[in-house]
Amino acid sequence: MCGHPQKIEPRSGVAFTLKRGQRLTVIDPEGEQVADLVAFVRDDIDEVISSGRTIDYASRLFLTTGDPIYSNRSNVLLDIVEDTVGRHDFLLTPCSADTFRIIYGDEHPHRGCFGNLAAALEPYGIGPDRIPVAFNVFMHVAIDGTTGEIAVKPPLSRAGDRVVFEAKVDLIVGLTACSALQSNNYAFKPILYAIADPA
Amino acid sequence: MCGHPQKIEPRSGVAFTLKRGQRLTVIDPEGEQVADLVAFVRDDIDEVISSGRTIDYASRLFLTTGDPIYSNRSNVLLDIVEDTVGRHDFLLTPCSADTFRIIYGDEHPHRGCFGNLAAALEPYGIGPDRIPVAFNVFMHVAIDGTTGEIAVKPPLSRAGDRVVFEAKVDLIVGLTACSALQSNNYAFKPILYAIADPA
Repeated sequence: MCGHPQKIEPRSGVAFTLKRGQRLTVIDPEGEQVADLVAFVRDDIDEVISSGRTIDYASRLFLTTGDPIYSNRSNVLLDIVEDTVGRHDFLLTPCSADTFRIIYGDEHPHRGCFGNLAAALEPYGIGPDRIPVAFNVFMHVAIDGTTGEIAVKPPLSRAGDRVVFEAKVDLIVGLTACSALQSNNYAFKPILYAIADPA
Repeated sequence: MCGHPQKIEPRSGVAFTLKRGQRLTVIDPEGEQVADLVAFVRDDIDEVISSGRTIDYASRLFLTTGDPIYSNRSNVLLDIVEDTVGRHDFLLTPCSADTFRIIYGDEHPHRGCFGNLAAALEPYGIGPDRIPVAFNVFMHVAIDGTTGEIAVKPPLSRAGDRVVFEAKVDLIVGLTACSALQSNNYAFKPILYAIADPA
């Protein structure tokens, strides 16, 4: 990692370009904090990370060091090159006002990671309908393989844990400090990220 | 069900409109055959079924009778109103030429459910990049909740098994007789479907 990490404030999000070969480090500075990550091909935003393709090709729900993240066109957009936690989620869409209304019963819901991503990606011409299932860094979703029941648990990440991604093509990345109570063990914390050029 | 069922030939696909209140019955006439289903809102094709939203709201990977299928905008597009099997998949994208190349090593791959859906949906103005994770009727994906490993198993459906969906809004539906060897216990069979008006 080179340069000072950037901070994503609690319950907010950012978007930025990540060039081919650059590495993105996502850090949980306090522990038990999720970061939703989405990525689009910079030169053609209709190509986007795909949970369905990635899980199919990996034959595994849980991704970690060495696993590629595929696009809807079956190209590798990112490789996971370092992971100090080993448990993340690639099943669920970013939390949204609807999530908080439907799951939590909030009458005046926060816009959630979905709203934060939509706002951050809007300057890149990416509309909210294009936001896919996110790679939810540090998110811990327990799965009962027999019943199919899932449960959102506190992240396994502790202060300083990190995941490093390498871009295989020029990308537009959206990244949040997640806004859902359950996902972050009922405390909203920041996320740090840093971008490093190839060695 | 009213009217004679329509047949989807092995390794092919169709698209059709399904009006609000109409019921779509998907039948496995010979057993162990998967049908990939996608659905778009007819009046705004940017609204589409969403595995991530649906699984999040259900807190369950396996959907069956009584479960709604949500869109990317968190509206219910379909309800599952009858299901004689109880095991389907909502994790994986439709099989494609890339699937056969990457997973099976085919040098001259079939276009798969993805190609069949793309061709069937093209007259409705729906491009291939818009095809989401499908609701894979009768598809049996075994999941190890501890390791996250997944394995495609023979469907649990036997001849005559069916799932009935009710449209909550006017839809464009894509439906296939799945083209992947593993998914259909290594034999490609047809799928039947019928559309019934509200009682």
